[in-house]
Order: sequence, then C-alpha cells, then structure tokens
Amino acid sequence: MSQLDAQWFAEVSDMWPGRALAINCRKKLVDCQTPYQHIELYETTDCGKMLVLDDVIQFTEDDEFAYQEMLAHLPLFSHPDPRNILVIGGGDGGVLREVARHDSVEHIDLCEIDAKVVEVCRQYVPSMACGFDDPRVAVTIGDGFQFIRDHRNCYDVIIVDSSDPIGPGEKLFGDEFYALMKEAIKPDGIIATQGESFFMHWQVVRDLMQVVRRHYRYSTYCYMMVPTYPGGTLGVCLGSQQRDVTVPCRRPSPELQAQLRYYTPEIHRAAQILPAFGERVVYEGGGGYNRNASGN
Amino acid sequence: MSQLDAQWFAEVSDMWPGRALAINCRKKLVDCQTPYQHIELYETTDCGKMLVLDDVIQFTEDDEFAYQEMLAHLPLFSHPDPRNILVIGGGDGGVLREVARHDSVEHIDLCEIDAKVVEVCRQYVPSMACGFDDPRVAVTIGDGFQFIRDHRNCYDVIIVDSSDPIGPGEKLFGDEFYALMKEAIKPDGIIATQGESFFMHWQVVRDLMQVVRRHYRYSTYCYMMVPTYPGGTLGVCLGSQQRDVTVPCRRPSPELQAQLRYYTPEIHRAAQILPAFGERVVYEGGGGYNRNASGN
Repeated sequence: MSQLDAQWFAEVSDMWPGRALAINCRKKLVDCQTPYQHIELYETTDCGKMLVLDDVIQFTEDDEFAYQEMLAHLPLFSHPDPRNILVIGGGDGGVLREVARHDSVEHIDLCEIDAKVVEVCRQYVPSMACGFDDPRVAVTIGDGFQFIRDHRNCYDVIIVDSSDPIGPGEKLFGDEFYALMKEAIKPDGIIATQGESFFMHWQVVRDLMQVVRRHYRYSTYCYMMVPTYPGGTLGVCLGSQQRDVTVPCRRPSPELQAQLRYYTPEIHRAAQILPAFGERVVYEGGGGYNRNASGN
Repeated sequence: MSQLDAQWFAEVSDMWPGRALAINCRKKLVDCQTPYQHIELYETTDCGKMLVLDDVIQFTEDDEFAYQEMLAHLPLFSHPDPRNILVIGGGDGGVLREVARHDSVEHIDLCEIDAKVVEVCRQYVPSMACGFDDPRVAVTIGDGFQFIRDHRNCYDVIIVDSSDPIGPGEKLFGDEFYALMKEAIKPDGIIATQGESFFMHWQVVRDLMQVVRRHYRYSTYCYMMVPTYPGGTLGVCLGSQQRDVTVPCRRPSPELQAQLRYYTPEIHRAAQILPAFGERVVYEGGGGYNRNASGN
C-alpha cells in the first residue's frame, strides 16, 4: 500500500503518531553517530539537501527560509538597535545568515553542542553555512545551558534554535533555562525560542507559553508554515521584560525586503493570529485539535 | 530506509514530486472505482476516517474542520444576510455542516458529480455527512458546470469544494466556469472556491487569481493550515461584484464561536497576509518558493 521504495526517507516518530512525511532521496551523503545524536544528510530528489537528526527532519534546503527568517527577524525587528546577539543551537548556520542581514549587529555568539553538525553543514550545505563566514560571528562548541549561565546582562537578542524536547534539546524547554536567559539579556533584550507546533505538540506549546509568561512581562507566540515540518507549521515564542514584541519597531529596507522570502512586517503581526483552537491552546491552556485531545 | 510497512498509505503524486505524506491505517473500509474516480476510505490509527480519491487524500476526520470552516465561513460572514446557498462538490457533507450553522440560511443546493462519494460518507463518516440531514439541503447528483449554467441570479453565496485540477475537478478551475458563476450569483453575491496551495501549486494559484480578478471587482486569497494536506496548507479564493470580501461584515455569536475550531473574525483577515513569496505569487504573478520556481 505504501508504494515507497527504499529511496524514500520516512519521518516516523512517537511525537506525531500515525503520520509520517516521506521525502524521496537520491543519495545519503552523511551517516554518523556523535556523542549527542545520529546525524544523516541526504541529497533529495526535489527538496535540495536534507539534514536529519535522530530520525527527525531538521531542514530541507528548499523551505528552510521560512523557519530561519521568522526565528531571526521576529526578535530583531522588534528591537530598535540590536547589536549583540546570541544564538543557541543553529549549527547549520541558517539563523546566522539571517541575523547577519541586520547592519546594526556588531557581534554574534553561536553556541552549538555538536561540532559535527557544523562540520557537515559547512561541507555540504553552503547555502546555509554561509552564515558562519560573517566576520561578526564567534562560534563556541559547548552546552548552551552552561553558556547562558556564564553570561549576564549582555545580549540584545537571544535566539534558541533547538531541536525537539527529546534528546539534547530537552532542557532548553524548561523553567530554569528561561530564568537564565532573562539574566543573560539586557533589561530591554528579547528572547526568541523554537516554539514547536500547536497542531502536533499542543501540550508542549501550552506549557512552554506558561513558562514564557511567568518570566517575561511581554510575550507572544508566532507560527510559520514549513511544508517539510510535521503538520506543516512550527512556532516561535517571543519574550521581553521591557519591549512589546507583538509589533515590529523597524521595517526592512526595500533592499533587504527584496531578499526575504517569508518575513514581512505584516506577517509579523498576522503570525500571532491563531485558529480558534490554537488561541485556546496558547492563551487559555485549552486542548489540541484532534478528537483525543483534552485540556489536561 | 522508508520503515513503512504495508499498513501505511503514502500520498505519492506528480503534483508534489519527491514528497509524500504517509498515514498509518488500521483498515480499508471502501475500495471502488466509479465512472469518475477511484474511491478509498480508510480507518486510520490516529487521524480518524480518511477519504482518498484517485490516490489523493481528501480529508482526515481529525483536521477536516480547518478546511470546511474556512471554505464556508469566509464567504458567509462576508455577506450580511446569506439565504440561498449553492455548494458544488462537497459530497462528504462537511461544507454543508458548516453552512447550516448560519440561521439566516433558508436553502442549500448541493451538486455533487459522484453519488458514490455521498453514499460512502453517509455510511461511514457521520461526523461530516450530518450536513446532509439539515432540512434546508437539496442534493443534486450531476455536473456542477451544467448546474451553474442552468441557474441565473439566484444565489447569495456559491461555494466550490472541488478536488485538484486533475480529473473531474479540472474544468472548475477555468475562465468559463468563473464567468458562469458570476451569472448564477445575485449582483451582491459572493463566490468561494478551493484555491490550492501557494507552496505546492503556485502556478495554479497565480493563474486562478488572475481569473478571479478578471471576473470579480472584489477578490482575495485566504489560506488555512491543514496538517494532512500536501505541504500543510490550502487556500480559498473569494470574489464578488459588490461586496468587499476582505473583511467579515458579521461576527459569529458567542454560541457559534464556541463551536468553531478554526474560523474567527480575526483569522478571516490574517489568513490574507501571506509570506513574502506568497504575496508575489498571488498579487504580482511571481514564482514559487523552491529554487526551481521562476515567474513563468
């Protein structure tokens, strides 16, 4: 019945039971186990390169722009003068590429736990790893949790580009990490974190937004559409002690806007307008969309 | 590599090359060939019932609400007093179920080409086919194109719930059909048509919106997120000669809003704000999101 031959990679996971996106692959370029995760990189037939960590698709080259642009530009355009930026995770370089588009940025720290992810993307995915070439970027290979703990009151924006809360990304979804980020940003700084999908992971989104609201006076949840993520959407949580993160305070220059394929000031606002059930998940602790979901 | 056993249905199609959503199925309930199409109905493990026509997923019970609500409520809440409604296609009953929520509605014609689709859904999917039980509904089994030709100046809203423009749905995407619908609605009537995905079918969306704009003074394109549609999104085209369809002119009552899982007056507006590349596809005739897409 499945009609799929051995060329296809199917993303089977308990995180989205009974559903699996399958991608037709021409060739497996990398297959290795690191101390942190199983890394696979494929050349697909129709989606460009594809990175898979522990059997979960992290990006396909064709649609990665949606996630990278929103995760980077939502917080950066909410800040009038972002200069010092920290990226946790993001070892593919895609977020760096987007952050580097902002002329105000003077320094970008990136802390990625797995050196092999950086190495693989630098070798095979220059369209994303080009972000590492910017002279403002300083890379640390290490634990993002510890990196945050060692920094106080120094970042305008912190971006957390993590994988799902299973495996190395798990502790980046907890209360303690959000408390530490609050200390690491300046008082008017902004955090932006990978916020999962209110379709596929409504319990995670509900709990995460409760954490964000507990620590930050201003907060919001934005989604973006990414065809090769489970269910086709993913989210970003924004938080700040002093800045309203629901509206951009700067617009891209015409030259920059022409380079962007997803972010606009209009979608910055519209991405916060969720379907009725999504509003209930994020703002009222309600249940998910499927018939088995309840509010607890 | 694909890890999928024979229980999984994989939606392989030239319409989305190299990508296939796979759904784990417990049992195939229906498998028959009609003069129009190949009909399969599955009991899935995690998504409820699933209808497949000519190897393309039409709905899964768990997320069909997103499409049905938007296709029905976008035009109906754009009209101050919708009384006489026509649904072309929609043999599963889902759009009928949503239209029937509007108290102002006095009569609903439904014209579906394939009696077997209605029969299968009435037997196996009562959560959607309940739409047929409303006493205001009159069903015609026949060709929607011919049905439209036979009606003049009589509908407040026409909803076209068609499959993709390959197979029986093909002529519902052409210039002639949009001209006929203009004659079948009242001068202040509104049309709402299945508008495909600006991710997966950007050429179809671009051409379709050019047709809509050619025939209707007011028009817009709205998207909704549906995890089990290719790429996770689908669209609705709205058109009218006299009514601004970009803003709702009525709000759901609190009782009705509590029943809805997707539509809100806020998402009516927000669903028109597209990612930068989507704006270019719909409003500037631009190319799609992937690297092989160009503007022609």
